[in-house]
Amino acid sequence: MNNNRIAVILLSGGIDSATTAAVAKRDGYLLFALTFAYGQKHDIEIKFAKHLLLSLSIKNHIVIEIPSIIFSSSALLNKSKIEMPKNRDVLAMDDIPVTYVPARNILFLSYSIAYAESLGASDIFIGANSIDYSGYPDCRPEFFMAYENMANIGTKAGVMGKKFTIHTPLIDMKKSQIICLGKSLGIDYSLTHSCYDPDELGSSCGECDSCIIRKRGFLEAGFLDPTKYRKNTNVSFNK
Amino acid sequence: MNNNRIAVILLSGGIDSATTAAVAKRDGYLLFALTFAYGQKHDIEIKFAKHLLLSLSIKNHIVIEIPSIIFSSSALLNKSKIEMPKNRDVLAMDDIPVTYVPARNILFLSYSIAYAESLGASDIFIGANSIDYSGYPDCRPEFFMAYENMANIGTKAGVMGKKFTIHTPLIDMKKSQIICLGKSLGIDYSLTHSCYDPDELGSSCGECDSCIIRKRGFLEAGFLDPTKYRKNTNVSFNK
Repeated sequence: MNNNRIAVILLSGGIDSATTAAVAKRDGYLLFALTFAYGQKHDIEIKFAKHLLLSLSIKNHIVIEIPSIIFSSSALLNKSKIEMPKNRDVLAMDDIPVTYVPARNILFLSYSIAYAESLGASDIFIGANSIDYSGYPDCRPEFFMAYENMANIGTKAGVMGKKFTIHTPLIDMKKSQIICLGKSLGIDYSLTHSCYDPDELGSSCGECDSCIIRKRGFLEAGFLDPTKYRKNTNVSFNK
Repeated sequence: MNNNRIAVILLSGGIDSATTAAVAKRDGYLLFALTFAYGQKHDIEIKFAKHLLLSLSIKNHIVIEIPSIIFSSSALLNKSKIEMPKNRDVLAMDDIPVTYVPARNILFLSYSIAYAESLGASDIFIGANSIDYSGYPDCRPEFFMAYENMANIGTKAGVMGKKFTIHTPLIDMKKSQIICLGKSLGIDYSLTHSCYDPDELGSSCGECDSCIIRKRGFLEAGFLDPTKYRKNTNVSFNK
């Protein structure tokens, strides 16, 4: 237990960041949350992040706006003309998908390091995982190691020996394991959002990579997915 | 010469970034500039950055706003209650000064990497130098090496072999050498601003670390400093 230790957490409103927040709270951290509005099609996730904050009793929250032009080459952006991939076999993918957002975790972590150093905190939590969906280079353990090393060379805190730690408690977990962990910590997953391509009312498509991974995770974990999907296509997978 | 190669440049409106922009242009790069508004007391530098863009014929420019709470523990911020150091012997300093802004170059570089990857560019220019003013950990060569390594692990471009290069052409230069270089490239330094503590009219204090380094640089270089200072205290230095 680290009573009253402060940590910064990146909270998107999805399953992974919600579960990571619950883990950090369990471990005794007082959390300061950052959420990002960067022109994503699924900016409804920001509303979910706010509901999650209430349910997790996190009082400190900043929503940071990033001009969408910074990330302009991703299918995830509102203004993108790149088609959103649907109904793919996410287990069979071995390329970096068009939903990759350039240097997103680099930029998000950089906000968290600056904010943490301003607060006098040394701990950062991020809900990255590299098992179910290893397409993104900025979700791999070697990236987080390189980032932590860089941050400890490039900051006053790091140089003075108050080293930063990037906590990635979910890094080696499958989505089903993450859901089981979150359930054991009391998370209400109806307060989370995963879909990359929600409609104007916010309902999930059920067909994008993120919906498919979510549905597969709940199915494998043996829990009911509380999400209402526009198209409830079946998910097939091998355990 | 790298005709028509695109690069992202961090342009603050000071001597170093102006000179770096001129170097990058000399080397044939088409520049996309980023300037940051982060609640700095000297936000007049943003106006200077815009004038510099015109004089350097740089057409692509984004001003990015960062909530000042992210950097809240620095004397450079508008809302800071930390006193701005004045009339110090900048050559004798060996601590990290209170004007240090937490993880500022980490965050600024992260914007530049995301933007560069979106543009399909691999080159970043930053006007850091570690000789005249080595107090900031994020201005040292070892930091830039660690940053570049991290960026090439954490991005699609880096993983696919299109490695990023962080160019720091001024890293080993004294301020006087930078001014001589800029003069040789035709820079009008009346379009640059250095003061950390300008008054409402934008005039420079002449006493903060940044003014002292600027005055000393012009004196050593043998050029007239075009800046009008509120207090024109003498600068002493050993060559």
